[in-house]
Amino acid sequence: MSDGLQVSQLSSLLVEDAVRAALREDLGRAGDLTSDAIIRPGDQTSALIRTRARGCIAGMQLAEASFRALDPQASFDVVVSDGTVADPGAIIAEVRGPARAILTGERTALNFLIHLSGIATLTHTYVDAVAGTSAHICCTRKTTPGLRALEKYAVRVGGGMNHRFGLDDAILIKDNHIAFAGDIATAIERVRARASHMVKVEVEVDTLAQLETVLGFDVDAVLLDNMTPDHLKAAVRLAGGRVITEASGGVSLETVRAIAEAGVNLISVGALTHSAPALDLGLDLA
Amino acid sequence: MSDGLQVSQLSSLLVEDAVRAALREDLGRAGDLTSDAIIRPGDQTSALIRTRARGCIAGMQLAEASFRALDPQASFDVVVSDGTVADPGAIIAEVRGPARAILTGERTALNFLIHLSGIATLTHTYVDAVAGTSAHICCTRKTTPGLRALEKYAVRVGGGMNHRFGLDDAILIKDNHIAFAGDIATAIERVRARASHMVKVEVEVDTLAQLETVLGFDVDAVLLDNMTPDHLKAAVRLAGGRVITEASGGVSLETVRAIAEAGVNLISVGALTHSAPALDLGLDLA
Amino acid sequence: MSDGLQVSQLSSLLVEDAVRAALREDLGRAGDLTSDAIIRPGDQTSALIRTRARGCIAGMQLAEASFRALDPQASFDVVVSDGTVADPGAIIAEVRGPARAILTGERTALNFLIHLSGIATLTHTYVDAVAGTSAHICCTRKTTPGLRALEKYAVRVGGGMNHRFGLDDAILIKDNHIAFAGDIATAIERVRARASHMVKVEVEVDTLAQLETVLGFDVDAVLLDNMTPDHLKAAVRLAGGRVITEASGGVSLETVRAIAEAGVNLISVGALTHSAPALDLGLDLA
Amino acid sequence: MSDGLQVSQLSSLLVEDAVRAALREDLGRAGDLTSDAIIRPGDQTSALIRTRARGCIAGMQLAEASFRALDPQASFDVVVSDGTVADPGAIIAEVRGPARAILTGERTALNFLIHLSGIATLTHTYVDAVAGTSAHICCTRKTTPGLRALEKYAVRVGGGMNHRFGLDDAILIKDNHIAFAGDIATAIERVRARASHMVKVEVEVDTLAQLETVLGFDVDAVLLDNMTPDHLKAAVRLAGGRVITEASGGVSLETVRAIAEAGVNLISVGALTHSAPALDLGLDLA
Amino acid sequence: MSDGLQVSQLSSLLVEDAVRAALREDLGRAGDLTSDAIIRPGDQTSALIRTRARGCIAGMQLAEASFRALDPQASFDVVVSDGTVADPGAIIAEVRGPARAILTGERTALNFLIHLSGIATLTHTYVDAVAGTSAHICCTRKTTPGLRALEKYAVRVGGGMNHRFGLDDAILIKDNHIAFAGDIATAIERVRARASHMVKVEVEVDTLAQLETVLGFDVDAVLLDNMTPDHLKAAVRLAGGRVITEASGGVSLETVRAIAEAGVNLISVGALTHSAPALDLGLDLA
Amino acid sequence: MSDGLQVSQLSSLLVEDAVRAALREDLGRAGDLTSDAIIRPGDQTSALIRTRARGCIAGMQLAEASFRALDPQASFDVVVSDGTVADPGAIIAEVRGPARAILTGERTALNFLIHLSGIATLTHTYVDAVAGTSAHICCTRKTTPGLRALEKYAVRVGGGMNHRFGLDDAILIKDNHIAFAGDIATAIERVRARASHMVKVEVEVDTLAQLETVLGFDVDAVLLDNMTPDHLKAAVRLAGGRVITEASGGVSLETVRAIAEAGVNLISVGALTHSAPALDLGLDLA
Repeated sequence: MSDGLQVSQLSSLLVEDAVRAALREDLGRAGDLTSDAIIRPGDQTSALIRTRARGCIAGMQLAEASFRALDPQASFDVVVSDGTVADPGAIIAEVRGPARAILTGERTALNFLIHLSGIATLTHTYVDAVAGTSAHICCTRKTTPGLRALEKYAVRVGGGMNHRFGLDDAILIKDNHIAFAGDIATAIERVRARASHMVKVEVEVDTLAQLETVLGFDVDAVLLDNMTPDHLKAAVRLAGGRVITEASGGVSLETVRAIAEAGVNLISVGALTHSAPALDLGLDLA
Repeated sequence: MSDGLQVSQLSSLLVEDAVRAALREDLGRAGDLTSDAIIRPGDQTSALIRTRARGCIAGMQLAEASFRALDPQASFDVVVSDGTVADPGAIIAEVRGPARAILTGERTALNFLIHLSGIATLTHTYVDAVAGTSAHICCTRKTTPGLRALEKYAVRVGGGMNHRFGLDDAILIKDNHIAFAGDIATAIERVRARASHMVKVEVEVDTLAQLETVLGFDVDAVLLDNMTPDHLKAAVRLAGGRVITEASGGVSLETVRAIAEAGVNLISVGALTHSAPALDLGLDLA
Repeated sequence: MSDGLQVSQLSSLLVEDAVRAALREDLGRAGDLTSDAIIRPGDQTSALIRTRARGCIAGMQLAEASFRALDPQASFDVVVSDGTVADPGAIIAEVRGPARAILTGERTALNFLIHLSGIATLTHTYVDAVAGTSAHICCTRKTTPGLRALEKYAVRVGGGMNHRFGLDDAILIKDNHIAFAGDIATAIERVRARASHMVKVEVEVDTLAQLETVLGFDVDAVLLDNMTPDHLKAAVRLAGGRVITEASGGVSLETVRAIAEAGVNLISVGALTHSAPALDLGLDLA
Repeated sequence: MSDGLQVSQLSSLLVEDAVRAALREDLGRAGDLTSDAIIRPGDQTSALIRTRARGCIAGMQLAEASFRALDPQASFDVVVSDGTVADPGAIIAEVRGPARAILTGERTALNFLIHLSGIATLTHTYVDAVAGTSAHICCTRKTTPGLRALEKYAVRVGGGMNHRFGLDDAILIKDNHIAFAGDIATAIERVRARASHMVKVEVEVDTLAQLETVLGFDVDAVLLDNMTPDHLKAAVRLAGGRVITEASGGVSLETVRAIAEAGVNLISVGALTHSAPALDLGLDLA
Repeated sequence: MSDGLQVSQLSSLLVEDAVRAALREDLGRAGDLTSDAIIRPGDQTSALIRTRARGCIAGMQLAEASFRALDPQASFDVVVSDGTVADPGAIIAEVRGPARAILTGERTALNFLIHLSGIATLTHTYVDAVAGTSAHICCTRKTTPGLRALEKYAVRVGGGMNHRFGLDDAILIKDNHIAFAGDIATAIERVRARASHMVKVEVEVDTLAQLETVLGFDVDAVLLDNMTPDHLKAAVRLAGGRVITEASGGVSLETVRAIAEAGVNLISVGALTHSAPALDLGLDLA
Repeated sequence: MSDGLQVSQLSSLLVEDAVRAALREDLGRAGDLTSDAIIRPGDQTSALIRTRARGCIAGMQLAEASFRALDPQASFDVVVSDGTVADPGAIIAEVRGPARAILTGERTALNFLIHLSGIATLTHTYVDAVAGTSAHICCTRKTTPGLRALEKYAVRVGGGMNHRFGLDDAILIKDNHIAFAGDIATAIERVRARASHMVKVEVEVDTLAQLETVLGFDVDAVLLDNMTPDHLKAAVRLAGGRVITEASGGVSLETVRAIAEAGVNLISVGALTHSAPALDLGLDLA
């Protein structure tokens, strides 16, 4: 974006909490038996983190924090910032300092980087696939338990948009909710009677008839579920810009362009966070 | 296995901790705005969890706990147990009880199930691919931060073996460690002088010459890194059953059978935990 | 509300976390020295919780959980539900069971009840003061650290609306933000370029000129800061229903009716959560 | 006090725990959407915290920690120390550094300051009201759940004394306890048989006859519950300096002076912590 | 004690927190590898916990909770209650139910029992050694980090008294504090100016001259540090019942009777909590 | 050891977690009442930590962290490193800086040092007792709940070996497990069918006949339970170096040499961690 602002960083509190939990998981009770037995406390080293495949980098704050939580003497230089697409073999960061901290922290740092870069890379591929259309790619709540904020950050890094972060920051009325209300109108009315003015409301619709009903109410967005591109086009026309239109269901790299060309504002893709393969990265001693 | 013992269950403490953290993440501060606005507190319902693709199921304990942590009145019946391969469209579980708990817990329950079943399914595919050989498929420490115990459980469910759970329960001497010791012999000696008698020692080797050196010491296993099948065969012959042989690096569904036929005991596959796509599952109200 | 739905309950996870933290705070390391010394383990009792002043009750779930976390044998009957206005001297709940749990839990249960009922009561007073106008009373982020979700629940119980729950669930552009962007248009554009489609955007304005500028952009609400009723009337007229109008600043029970009659949609009152006096309640053995 | 010692500070561990919990509550999963979208990472600023009403300041350590937990580059200068009464409009602190940390931390810092300064101010008002008498104003266990240590600190800052911090650091025998023992003598005997020599014992009495009974035992203090000033005078005379006398119940700014003049040592006021209105403070960019 | 009251129980919250932390420590990431591999999920068993040495039992609540946290189906019958001295070979409890929970929980249950019973037993020995004198045996703050509340409970179970539980529930002025105040009078005055009326004050003295100074002030107890029995006798005479007298330092089973016969009220023994050998106990399948 | 490597350090994360928990336990809600009342915030001091008995020092990292967690201005100089045997009266560390942090942290620092040095010292005594034999002294899982990693570190510092850290890092088949399998062969087969290749397997045997059976399987170690030295000698001869031999049960300083001379590889001693008396250490202001 031309205003010079980066994609928003993760807060340092969140980074620290996540890294410490991950290190505790890997160190267990007894710590790094191998490094402790072999490496002398004073030994220093430096190492490079390199890509082994092309991909969009995400997670540098977490990698840096992984080494520095073990030893604040470790220094970490970012060579390729989050959001940049790196070629295979590119050096993306350099870490220098106490050898024990670097070898002990290696796996934790890489586990964050390969997972988040994997998500950013897949997001980036989807974003590329709809280039030139007005559609934005966005994520869902189908995230790995415990990692939602990090994974949604990786989606932003890859050029995607975030959908809601939880059950509590936006309202999404689905079929199952409508079943309990009796009909779509009652569901929306119940929500309108209780929702804060600062909370957006989206309604899932499967048919144009449902969409027409929904458009009679004050809602912010409609989730067009599992519609064909032609069906979506008709829905977008019907919506006429009065609500945000989001396509969902059956989205793949094969189908996404046609969906985007149907004119929807957003396409949500669960795979971004639940099925992105890790980006292959490695750490080598310099 | 013919002795009637199941794959070991997850401890109830671990399940409860994981589920509560995941629910807190999804509920945020304000809870489920949509369900709370629409569903009456006393409303009851029942729902079925179904596969939408063929796969090996894992995570039933976590799914059950996701609903019951919200409301102990919820009942959960497992139709397809962990470790079973289900066809697309199969009903794998039924949940009954308070509608709010079922709709609020749905995503958390499914997020555990799709992630762990994805891992179990990919593991199962690898295990199938080496059927009839003596090789076992095993996982690595390349897991999603915070979920190692759950992901390693899913690997077992899929028929795989677990490698070490952390830096503290086994010793794995890698190239980087050897560099600090000066040579492979010194590295092994330092480890032998400090390792508990209850801790196994594995050494990474890249060449047959290194393997020959390692065989002169008391080690339990060797990690044969990035070797071709022919190379592996020679290594297995050289090892002569004196140590466990583990192939690692460059393993894919295309290459795994040839690697297995080289006669190694184990093949470790990082992708099992870092790149398994989610298994597509859904919950439908009955 | 005529649809029979209650004000949304607090999730049981949230209630349990809050109550356990409060009990740990009161029990310290050594527990209840007085009750442990005097009351026999088997002693049973029953007690009534009564109002000592007129007020709107809130927090019954927390009171019940306070006793039951100490001893699941304790039973708790709600006589007056959350959201009901009780006269002085009214019995609002009865608790029965192990005397130790009842005496030990008394202060924790009451501390939740008097604080949340105090907030609900003050909210109710403000809501009454604007009865017949179209204005809703809502809260702010000026809450007691650690208790935001509970205090916002009490506001709902008292008939108020909730504003955003944190920095992450809605966007509110204030003067200070505008200063960093350079002008109001740039601030809104930066936000629009990054905000999720599920996040609402509100902008603070001090003058009609600012309001006019803001109305040229896609924003959901405007916070009219510290305006007189006449000023507010003009702002409402200018807004013309295109955005939600929220009055803020200088709101008291003396001024709130005039503000409401200016036609704004919402009036936010920090005092609801930061300055509500406790509602006087007591527990007496039956 | 003339010995140059300040009112005891809060421990840095306690401050850090409280501040991090409060920031996590406000940042939620997604962080500060507004500041992240608008303010450039490198932007610097400075801001002043000012009173908008006369009051006794408390909580500077927490305000400072709120900014510095977000970014250690933030510097914080205390202009008016805890315990000082500031006039309306007074600058009480200046914060300088990264703009994001200052705008993101503003509400958390202020929420601590307005709540604790509110308590200190109300305490100070009560202390002033009994000036010249021998009575001390003290707090109770009627505190906001989770904030007891901070609120009791604010009472000290305002010139008040602390009563016990929990059920475990002192013994207070109330009517309800006596009911279970059968009579006051048995209750005291049971306590005497079990209480550590380092734990004080106070007994609640409603009548002079009860007081006379209690004076026959080894107790440290008596809580004179809901007595009129004349009644209190008689009780103080009867106690004759053998025990500490504490008046409790029905204390307000209207009645407190007369109660103090009855000669009691202490007057406990629940309102200090459960009903103190916040002190109005604001942060303005310099 | 003849009033039928037991030594105060541990709160269920404290027990649950301690037991879950201990189980998590023993189960690690992978759980009980041995039992999970060998025992079928449905297998039932029963087991007896027996003493292998004579001692005073403490910790039954923790033992029970250790099994039941793993599986609520486990039932636990206390045969010998906390505080009872059991002969070698005595059955002290029986546990019945799921075999996995019993074998997995065995070590955690026993670790609590052997540690706490060891403390209770040593305490009981000291209490016996001073039988017939007026001295009480009490503990110190020299406890194992993390276990203070449990260890102090075990001291009570063994017939001892508790000294303060932490730095915050009583005041103990030591030599080092006096050094900073300049002299003993200033130290006491500073404390008196700040201490809550519900907090006791003890002062450490090394000489009779110091004791004489201290007796001129309002203090509750004196700690007579490292005095001989003759010295102690003189101190007790000088104190004349005006303060509680506590002997400390150089206390062993050889010296404790002579110290008690010097007439002090209390004898504090650090060894009770920092050097008590475990009581030998074992679990055998029935 | 001649390679210049120290006994492995504790990870800084583990040290920090343990120290903060211990300080929170000692400070409670109100902090250090005595030091806060008497010592001026700016007061500086220095203090020496000295032995009062001969012993092997362990825990310096924890002592240092105890002071520095309270105030990072405190400096800590290690005079005698972990693993060194110090004579009575030796200065082992010096701490300098803010007097409040030093007096407040004193007990926490010493509680870690006296406990861990006690364990190291007892371990050292056992290690000395078997000097010249080929036996190593090792610990068990009979540790104090919550402190296993620290106590096992102290065992290493004293020259001992560590047995497994939990139920999850190695397999130990005991009598009770065999009972559920039916016979020893079935138990081992079940374990072999499930155990990771990186997990060692030990089997408890009571007789030579059992040992002979076990030697027919692939196991890593045998635990020879409660055998006499002659019995042990026969067992070692029978094992013939094919498995590690560990003697357990009935080990004391009187019996350990004879056991070692029977030729076993390891002697496990529960007393190292459950019954080591604290090493007497004190802190004196300089």
